[in-house]
Amino acid sequence: MVLLSGGLDSATVLYFAKAKGYTCRCLIFDYGQLHKKEIIQAAKIAKAGACGYKILKIDFPWKGSALLDAKIKVPEKITRGIPATYVPARNIIFLSFALSFAEAIKAQAIFIGAHAQDYSGYPDCRPEFFKAFVKMARAGTVRGKSIRILAPLLNKNKAQIISIGQKLGVPFNLTRSCYRGEKLPCGKCDSCHYRAKGFKEAGLADPLIKT
Amino acid sequence: MVLLSGGLDSATVLYFAKAKGYTCRCLIFDYGQLHKKEIIQAAKIAKAGACGYKILKIDFPWKGSALLDAKIKVPEKITRGIPATYVPARNIIFLSFALSFAEAIKAQAIFIGAHAQDYSGYPDCRPEFFKAFVKMARAGTVRGKSIRILAPLLNKNKAQIISIGQKLGVPFNLTRSCYRGEKLPCGKCDSCHYRAKGFKEAGLADPLIKT
Repeated sequence: MVLLSGGLDSATVLYFAKAKGYTCRCLIFDYGQLHKKEIIQAAKIAKAGACGYKILKIDFPWKGSALLDAKIKVPEKITRGIPATYVPARNIIFLSFALSFAEAIKAQAIFIGAHAQDYSGYPDCRPEFFKAFVKMARAGTVRGKSIRILAPLLNKNKAQIISIGQKLGVPFNLTRSCYRGEKLPCGKCDSCHYRAKGFKEAGLADPLIKT
Repeated sequence: MVLLSGGLDSATVLYFAKAKGYTCRCLIFDYGQLHKKEIIQAAKIAKAGACGYKILKIDFPWKGSALLDAKIKVPEKITRGIPATYVPARNIIFLSFALSFAEAIKAQAIFIGAHAQDYSGYPDCRPEFFKAFVKMARAGTVRGKSIRILAPLLNKNKAQIISIGQKLGVPFNLTRSCYRGEKLPCGKCDSCHYRAKGFKEAGLADPLIKT
């Protein structure tokens, strides 16, 4: 079970899981994000990896994040603390659905592309959160002890993730990172900033940037 | 934030929270349960308690429970172990949404009507699960330390819950418990069995049973 978002982190995790020999099924969330393109790209990435996928529609009627509410502006510079793009408990909800799915189909593991280094502002990307989630999953499900929850990129930075992805053959051209939902990176939001920095430090060219 | 299902446990918890002085908002899930009546009753209970409510539609496309899949039969006798009505990680998902909502609107507490005694078959009703969930919520949200997660019925049996509810003025006539979705208790499923036993032991009459 791989949580797939359309970004390059989760795409890399999918290819990582495949390389480890797992038969993968992807779970893609349509959670009211303003940029539906993410969902289409996630489906394309799953198909490119020859993996089945399920798009799950969920509702966040309380908004309160720049990713869900067009009235909240995506910041144009790197923010400290909790970013405006924070969606309360998003990973908690995503992982809970993955856990339910994994329990229902007897999956061995759940893979998530979270990494703490760049986005230290999101509390549900921190290592201590994942540890606590694993314990909760064990206590709250029948098969919880048999379902591994793996965040293999947790201690990697963007450049390392891109290097790993490159070696695994991740189709970076299909991934989208921009918080503004633009196909070509806007170059201004946090996410574009880290993507550009990552490709530069990895010594690779972003296929989305035409030179 | 009160998780409301249409059953008598969560209705009692709503009235308990109100009696403790909380201004309550209810979260009701339309999660593909076969018996939509539950949702209508939950909304009626919220209104009877003069509380706002939100109905959240979520998807469990993996089925696998007698509450979601008409092909799986609701057992006619008390089952040992994991009941056929178990929905994988249902409370985990419900609580995760409640946590997101609570984080977004700065709620002080989340109330859930789970109780371990009767339904020991559901792993996400156990005290150790709630403890682990609280720790996970603290690690994974910004305001997690300020949001209490309260399951005040956790150590109560059905008779005790009914006695508490009676004193608090819970409109038991609006509650529905039957797994088969019948208005009048079918008298055969686990849930009807415990409801009938609870009213009997509490020395009260179930307003749904016409005498």
